[in-house]
Amino acid sequence: MKIAFIGLGNMGGPMALNLHRAKHTVNSFDVSETAVTRWRNEGLKIAGSAAESVFGAEVVITMLPASQHVDQLFFGGGAAVGLLDSIDAGALVIDCSTIASSTSKKLSEAAAKRNIAVLDAPVSGGTTGAVAATLTFMVGGAVQDLERARPLLEHMGKNIFHAGAAGAGQTAKICNNMLLAILMIGTSEALALGVANGLDPVVLSEIMKRSSGGNWALEKYNPMPGVLDNTPASRAYQGGFGTDLMVKDLSLAQDNATGNHVGTPLGGLARSLYAAHSLNGAGALDFSSIFKMFHK
Amino acid sequence: MKIAFIGLGNMGGPMALNLHRAKHTVNSFDVSETAVTRWRNEGLKIAGSAAESVFGAEVVITMLPASQHVDQLFFGGGAAVGLLDSIDAGALVIDCSTIASSTSKKLSEAAAKRNIAVLDAPVSGGTTGAVAATLTFMVGGAVQDLERARPLLEHMGKNIFHAGAAGAGQTAKICNNMLLAILMIGTSEALALGVANGLDPVVLSEIMKRSSGGNWALEKYNPMPGVLDNTPASRAYQGGFGTDLMVKDLSLAQDNATGNHVGTPLGGLARSLYAAHSLNGAGALDFSSIFKMFHK
Amino acid sequence: MKIAFIGLGNMGGPMALNLHRAKHTVNSFDVSETAVTRWRNEGLKIAGSAAESVFGAEVVITMLPASQHVDQLFFGGGAAVGLLDSIDAGALVIDCSTIASSTSKKLSEAAAKRNIAVLDAPVSGGTTGAVAATLTFMVGGAVQDLERARPLLEHMGKNIFHAGAAGAGQTAKICNNMLLAILMIGTSEALALGVANGLDPVVLSEIMKRSSGGNWALEKYNPMPGVLDNTPASRAYQGGFGTDLMVKDLSLAQDNATGNHVGTPLGGLARSLYAAHSLNGAGALDFSSIFKMFHK
Amino acid sequence: MKIAFIGLGNMGGPMALNLHRAKHTVNSFDVSETAVTRWRNEGLKIAGSAAESVFGAEVVITMLPASQHVDQLFFGGGAAVGLLDSIDAGALVIDCSTIASSTSKKLSEAAAKRNIAVLDAPVSGGTTGAVAATLTFMVGGAVQDLERARPLLEHMGKNIFHAGAAGAGQTAKICNNMLLAILMIGTSEALALGVANGLDPVVLSEIMKRSSGGNWALEKYNPMPGVLDNTPASRAYQGGFGTDLMVKDLSLAQDNATGNHVGTPLGGLARSLYAAHSLNGAGALDFSSIFKMFHK
Repeated sequence: MKIAFIGLGNMGGPMALNLHRAKHTVNSFDVSETAVTRWRNEGLKIAGSAAESVFGAEVVITMLPASQHVDQLFFGGGAAVGLLDSIDAGALVIDCSTIASSTSKKLSEAAAKRNIAVLDAPVSGGTTGAVAATLTFMVGGAVQDLERARPLLEHMGKNIFHAGAAGAGQTAKICNNMLLAILMIGTSEALALGVANGLDPVVLSEIMKRSSGGNWALEKYNPMPGVLDNTPASRAYQGGFGTDLMVKDLSLAQDNATGNHVGTPLGGLARSLYAAHSLNGAGALDFSSIFKMFHK
Repeated sequence: MKIAFIGLGNMGGPMALNLHRAKHTVNSFDVSETAVTRWRNEGLKIAGSAAESVFGAEVVITMLPASQHVDQLFFGGGAAVGLLDSIDAGALVIDCSTIASSTSKKLSEAAAKRNIAVLDAPVSGGTTGAVAATLTFMVGGAVQDLERARPLLEHMGKNIFHAGAAGAGQTAKICNNMLLAILMIGTSEALALGVANGLDPVVLSEIMKRSSGGNWALEKYNPMPGVLDNTPASRAYQGGFGTDLMVKDLSLAQDNATGNHVGTPLGGLARSLYAAHSLNGAGALDFSSIFKMFHK
Repeated sequence: MKIAFIGLGNMGGPMALNLHRAKHTVNSFDVSETAVTRWRNEGLKIAGSAAESVFGAEVVITMLPASQHVDQLFFGGGAAVGLLDSIDAGALVIDCSTIASSTSKKLSEAAAKRNIAVLDAPVSGGTTGAVAATLTFMVGGAVQDLERARPLLEHMGKNIFHAGAAGAGQTAKICNNMLLAILMIGTSEALALGVANGLDPVVLSEIMKRSSGGNWALEKYNPMPGVLDNTPASRAYQGGFGTDLMVKDLSLAQDNATGNHVGTPLGGLARSLYAAHSLNGAGALDFSSIFKMFHK
Repeated sequence: MKIAFIGLGNMGGPMALNLHRAKHTVNSFDVSETAVTRWRNEGLKIAGSAAESVFGAEVVITMLPASQHVDQLFFGGGAAVGLLDSIDAGALVIDCSTIASSTSKKLSEAAAKRNIAVLDAPVSGGTTGAVAATLTFMVGGAVQDLERARPLLEHMGKNIFHAGAAGAGQTAKICNNMLLAILMIGTSEALALGVANGLDPVVLSEIMKRSSGGNWALEKYNPMPGVLDNTPASRAYQGGFGTDLMVKDLSLAQDNATGNHVGTPLGGLARSLYAAHSLNGAGALDFSSIFKMFHK
């Protein structure tokens, strides 16, 4: 398949490479010279511009930092022409960026008028998952478009969920990540409380795991150093999913919640606690380092 | 074995009956005439007083509402003599009440001076678990005392966890239940946010369950009506674990947290939200009804 | 002065009338037929369109519900032409709507290119203040533009604050109102706690007022019925500043906070509590009715 | 008057000295040798024991760190005899400690049986106020007992409030200080949000002070360095009212709130934020340093 891949960051680069290695024709682009050099050296073909990359492409995949970048890329603004004007009718756009669901919907609607299909397909799994092709995709858009995309997504990831119509992939991701942040903080509080009472955190973790306190953060990603091997907590919170990325997802969740008049006391508080944690210097540490707010 | 069982409420009654049916000699007592009549009719032998019930007992089991009842029973106060003076040296006390871990420790220390062993063994599983003998016990105390108790506990429950020394059973329970409340509210927020965006709650629940949002409340006790069968949510929040019981456990957790100087932003907020929910008339509904605070 | 006044709602109508009564030439407009009829009957001159109302106007005043309305009015969209194209160079726009400061800044910048000055001048004081010309204006924009506007603002209000450059009026308002919501909830909690302990709320209010708990909500707008006369609390929370309006302002504050990466644990929680209060049926009650969440 | 004064810490010492300088006969005591030496050097007469200090005293004043110290002093425990047995019938006890209102009530009731009157009279104003005799007293107990105490209190403080019956002084203090913590955090959030938007904090403070955001923390104790002179914020948060003291008062408030089933979402969150702030190393800084959680 002829694929354009725009956005060769720490996530996009490995994803494009996995498609390239699966023998697809990948024409890629990034505005950063550093990124371009790095991935050209890895074997990716680099186009001279975003518009050039999509020339003749059946599928256009984008992986950009935030809503405004997606908006600017596809719709243009100022002197820039929007990429939608360069993509062939009949093509499929798969936007893997984590952005506002309202931006995803707007893109989908504008593209539909040009007979271009769009999926919002934000991922989880981090850079490790991007390299190992074990990402999780949460996909919004039409079922038949997801089926067109599936063979490609399977070269980049392992779990592919259809969340609903346009924008639903974004919504599913922020709901999940908001809940994840709550699980992580709540688990940290419970462990800190137990340890302050003299309990062994390994024993307490095992009890809660087998009781009604069981959750992903406790079982797979325990925030207390030493409870589990191979977690960021057990390597000084290096690697993993950074605090600042969690702040970004929690902010998207809150923007959505205010717009939809949904009360989210724990989700909103999670955002503020992570913002304070970042301000305190932990922005680059794994998000499980929030445990340090409760135990030293 | 000769067992005294004090406290024949909705939990204690069925627990005592299960021991009776297992051919143990159970001498039981409750201050409530109604309770006494009910369980006598079920076949339990009823003593004339708490002191009389423990006469010659090898094991004394108690199931009382709150710290002050346990304190008053064992230590007396005013004109009343404490039960510790009536229990035989060498006997084992198993206190199944959910109370402050400080009270459990105090009881354990005072009893040790009389050569009476004490386990704190609060339960989860509700009245259904008490009747079906499927309770979970979280036990604090010495290992050898737990081994003495185990055959009896196995007539009343299924999972038996040793949490640590005296008081650790109480601590494990409040840590777990504080975390459970956070899971329930967080799951409710995430589902309400998804649904407000048009997502199907069954689809969203499935996605989060298989992602990093997975947790007991989402998977086993989903708070949105219609997502799972056989949950309180799907029968108008009747039955299950009442809001007011959750308020009690969250209050114990907060009392412990303030005493130990542990910050618990989500746990403290959970207490206040459940208190508001109770004030609003939901005290007797299952605790998953907190979902109604976020979605109507 | 020749003034265009666009937006004749419960706030805008009385404001326009006050300018009219001060002998200014006011050409007004609203998209609602009901509003137009009402204010024509009160003596206002009504233009056939927004564009017509600004014809020849030296000052254009707008009072609209939300950011999207201001954006749509001035910039157009779809088939509609933006009002900026119809306003005379040299004119002054005073936007009294409470909207995102980013929208205010965008308007100010676009207008400056056409040599049109813009002030953002959101108000507080409610419909009572609009009628009585006792509103408070928080103004963003250039000092000299505020001086041009001042004589007009003084016909509509009493306190006029210059908060800073474009958008600063909006920011000042959401900071103030976020703080106000926190004062109101915090005061409600303190009073409920005191009363639950048997204290007289009048005595407790007086003590806190004269101590370090003193604040506007406690002193001027006490949320407990019976403590102060002439407050919404003392008339079943009728009138005043509605819960849903507070939700709107708190949502603007949160959107701003997420965009600027500022942690606001109490402000974010205030939004969620007011959202829950509204969902529970209190949207039209005065915002001091949040007291009922803590005391029945 | 013959006065016993027990508890010569940073607060109690200067208070006792002010009574001594007012020509009362003060017989004082403290368990700390350091404290005893210090205040003997300042001129205070020191008794050999607490029991000795109250011999023949008409008024007994106590200023102790926490509930357990008051309980232990008056009721004894272990080998120790309670001080109540040594105080003359007809005497008046004024307990200036900040403790649980339940302990104050228990003391008052036990003392009444011995015809000893008790006032709970916790103070605010800090060590500066203790030295300058400008403390605020919040008093619980009978009116006639307060009138007996008033001449003495006036040698130590400036504002004397009668909050209600026994324990009401304690309740009033924790209600006030819980509200104060909320004012401080809320004010910090509002200022941080404004400053992040480019506003001048002096201007924003002035606007909110004259609007509905006005409160004691903003106006008298502004947490942003440079806004007000002579605040702890303007001397690197040195002096003032320490974070750890605020944690203590917020913990008392939460213990009371859980016991009385009162929801306190902002008050509970304030406790957890201050606990995190203390854990982060700010325990000895003034409590307005919480501002650093929101702005660096």
